[in-house]
Amino acid sequence: MDLFGKDLICTQEWSREELMAVLDLAAKMKRDRFSDRYAHLLKNKTFFMFFYNPSVRTRQSFECAATELGGHAQFLEPKAMRLKTATTAGETIEDAAQVMSRYAAGLGIRILEDKVPYYGAGDELIREYAYWCSIPVISMAHDKFHPCQGLADLMGWAEWFGKGPGYPIDPSVLEGKKLLVTWGHGALARSWCSVQEALLIGSRFGMDVVLAHPEGYTLDPQVIEWTRQNCAANGRTFEETTEVRKGYEGAHVVYSRHWMSPQAYQDGEFLKQQEIEKALQYPEWICDADKMALTDNAIFTHPMPIDRGHEVTDEVASGPRSCIYDVAENRLHVQKAIMALTMA
Amino acid sequence: MDLFGKDLICTQEWSREELMAVLDLAAKMKRDRFSDRYAHLLKNKTFFMFFYNPSVRTRQSFECAATELGGHAQFLEPKAMRLKTATTAGETIEDAAQVMSRYAAGLGIRILEDKVPYYGAGDELIREYAYWCSIPVISMAHDKFHPCQGLADLMGWAEWFGKGPGYPIDPSVLEGKKLLVTWGHGALARSWCSVQEALLIGSRFGMDVVLAHPEGYTLDPQVIEWTRQNCAANGRTFEETTEVRKGYEGAHVVYSRHWMSPQAYQDGEFLKQQEIEKALQYPEWICDADKMALTDNAIFTHPMPIDRGHEVTDEVASGPRSCIYDVAENRLHVQKAIMALTMA
Amino acid sequence: MDLFGKDLICTQEWSREELMAVLDLAAKMKRDRFSDRYAHLLKNKTFFMFFYNPSVRTRQSFECAATELGGHAQFLEPKAMRLKTATTAGETIEDAAQVMSRYAAGLGIRILEDKVPYYGAGDELIREYAYWCSIPVISMAHDKFHPCQGLADLMGWAEWFGKGPGYPIDPSVLEGKKLLVTWGHGALARSWCSVQEALLIGSRFGMDVVLAHPEGYTLDPQVIEWTRQNCAANGRTFEETTEVRKGYEGAHVVYSRHWMSPQAYQDGEFLKQQEIEKALQYPEWICDADKMALTDNAIFTHPMPIDRGHEVTDEVASGPRSCIYDVAENRLHVQKAIMALTMA
Repeated sequence: MDLFGKDLICTQEWSREELMAVLDLAAKMKRDRFSDRYAHLLKNKTFFMFFYNPSVRTRQSFECAATELGGHAQFLEPKAMRLKTATTAGETIEDAAQVMSRYAAGLGIRILEDKVPYYGAGDELIREYAYWCSIPVISMAHDKFHPCQGLADLMGWAEWFGKGPGYPIDPSVLEGKKLLVTWGHGALARSWCSVQEALLIGSRFGMDVVLAHPEGYTLDPQVIEWTRQNCAANGRTFEETTEVRKGYEGAHVVYSRHWMSPQAYQDGEFLKQQEIEKALQYPEWICDADKMALTDNAIFTHPMPIDRGHEVTDEVASGPRSCIYDVAENRLHVQKAIMALTMA
Repeated sequence: MDLFGKDLICTQEWSREELMAVLDLAAKMKRDRFSDRYAHLLKNKTFFMFFYNPSVRTRQSFECAATELGGHAQFLEPKAMRLKTATTAGETIEDAAQVMSRYAAGLGIRILEDKVPYYGAGDELIREYAYWCSIPVISMAHDKFHPCQGLADLMGWAEWFGKGPGYPIDPSVLEGKKLLVTWGHGALARSWCSVQEALLIGSRFGMDVVLAHPEGYTLDPQVIEWTRQNCAANGRTFEETTEVRKGYEGAHVVYSRHWMSPQAYQDGEFLKQQEIEKALQYPEWICDADKMALTDNAIFTHPMPIDRGHEVTDEVASGPRSCIYDVAENRLHVQKAIMALTMA
Repeated sequence: MDLFGKDLICTQEWSREELMAVLDLAAKMKRDRFSDRYAHLLKNKTFFMFFYNPSVRTRQSFECAATELGGHAQFLEPKAMRLKTATTAGETIEDAAQVMSRYAAGLGIRILEDKVPYYGAGDELIREYAYWCSIPVISMAHDKFHPCQGLADLMGWAEWFGKGPGYPIDPSVLEGKKLLVTWGHGALARSWCSVQEALLIGSRFGMDVVLAHPEGYTLDPQVIEWTRQNCAANGRTFEETTEVRKGYEGAHVVYSRHWMSPQAYQDGEFLKQQEIEKALQYPEWICDADKMALTDNAIFTHPMPIDRGHEVTDEVASGPRSCIYDVAENRLHVQKAIMALTMA
């Protein structure tokens, strides 16, 4: 298997074997974090990070990843670029991508829903960069997908149900486990990317999946269809519900996070304030100890940053079954492994 | 003595022996700046720099420090973070600090008076990060203290009264020397942090201390009390005066810098413009050759950037007894030593 | 020849031998890009990049250059500095430059026409930094010159007319070749720096030069005079024309780019909108296949980013005789060579 030069835009586009190669290497890198085996893989090499949307967590983990591989991640904000748009003169992606390919070993792009005129436009943009780049393009979260988060999630869950951090990842421990991905109320009008990636990767690796949300908060039909197919291929179940408590019953992994409604765009505008007001009308959609008591001693997972008091109570988020910091740490290891496999 | 993992928020909280360990190593690092002994101490490791307030000098010296130790300092602006506040949804410091501890070897924070609702709020914030972080937290200047500046000051003064740069630091050459910390007029409404740190570290190491300022410009009573106690413990004198010339008499080190008045805050607001107007009413509070003639051939010191023409004349600032560039350079060496001792 | 510590503000101020030293090393660095011979030349060292104007390309190439030499380039925006101006308190360049010289191995500065009150003010500023700095100051493009672009241009042209990338640069292949530098219409009100540097370096190395532009779009008289002298010294011709097609006849290198008019400033203001409106009145000033057919199978060159559809058609810019990506790549190699020769 040769992953050198391969783009990573959605885990669904990588084979299970390819995803396992990432997880295997990530686990080794976690155990021997500063080993000389890994410390020079990107020596003298550059990874460009293109942040259409600002981010602290994603920047921290990607920039650390490059540093730990001996390379350097450049923090770039395309607003400083004079890119051509429908109404302004500037550089084309064709030109920008081909020049960047001469300088760097890889390109990461982050572009979320509030920077695009409609859902999917960010995905189109990232694929246009990938088309013109001869270096691998990695999604650092975009409006549709967040593959690095999905891999970090799976790694964290497998650690909790397996032998723990430092051991090889054995995703078979997740087979037949029940994953609840549930909407949480909140004041942030969040992207679909992390939860969609969780649905896809959880179902890829043999989990039973429940998607729960209030009426009117479904996700991308294509992602739901893929999730259904993944579950079917593994002989597992997929269910979508608008009941707030039902999905908790017997769950092993509870993923509670807010997301925007499909009505978030109108005439090319992202209606953030309207989304926030609508979302705050569902205060019962919070993950709390009462609901967690319905589960099969489930772990609580979240891609962070958490909106405490809305998506989840402090009691659960800081409780003994919360895997949030482990998953956050795994972002680093997973990204190091992806960079090593696709760029070194 | 083991400084690994230790926070540095104020020099007063470190023992004299611990401060000497920093100065000893800083002097060695200055002499053999690019020696292989130091070039790998932070290899592949990350230092996070959190700039609530922008800064060029502090960023330059910390980022250089990490580079010279073989590591990398990430320049982060928390405005890009969605942090929870009293009125907005976002991430808690509890969460942010615990995740950062998984990624980095240390965290520097800079937060000055204009970013907080009252004097001391920056100190509280930095201590909340330190509480939740398992990595050392270093103040890169906050509303109360500026420990790296204090150490760089002391190193510079000891070099000038000792054998010069490149030799081991012997702070006993400062014992009994007279340090004048004097207010300067000006148009910048500056923080208390640097001057307070100078009072504390000068008095710690056996200097006689005079604090001079116009009526209504005293500093934090706790810092003045600590300075008094430090002097007493060393058998030295401490004096506070509102006479502009008196403190110069017989001084060996003159530190002239503007600072805001204790009335700078009202109802949670930093009254910058009001402070500037008030300060400009004291044009006689400038360090000039006439006043320097009263001293015992004193050196002129300043944490920079200097507000020339307000705090000090060009003649003095660029004169043969100005140690400003040496002190500025020492920021680098002191910070390298702190990072090496607490993070490597 | 010892280039250590030498500033690079305009290629005209360096001897042909010095420029050849850069090109020789750049070609070697291109052939063995990640060789151990170069990977440690700036180890643990810092290069400051001062961006008065934002830039993606220049930042990418300089930051990559430092990384590939084992060092680190700090991205700094002077707006975060409190610099003294005619009307505001702040730090002087005297102070800033002397402190930076204590921290870093070199300083790059980028300041373009829209950040200064008149043409040439950027050049004066960069020379004031150079006066006070004890480290080399490199122009990363300023209102008058762009020496790194000029060197990358020449390297690219010599590759196309010589043996190609990877071989030693032999600029004699350019002797007697005809360089057309032609104005292109467009909506960006661009600087004179790149085209002026192209005139200077092309004429230095024995090319016949034609400068073409509409009435009222001449360049700096000093640069035109230097170009004329360079051509005369090499026994070559220099011609300035306002005919749009004539310069294409028999040309070997066509450089089509927009630039502002000499009327771009009024009362200390840069009249960007007025310049754009004026420029759009010349739609015939575009480099297209029809005009390229007049040449002697010329290559198309441009410093990028290209304003496609204004300065040049897609057909030419993406055609088989376009050297734009090679020239862009050469920015990296040339800058690595400059840093190695002046700072290592």
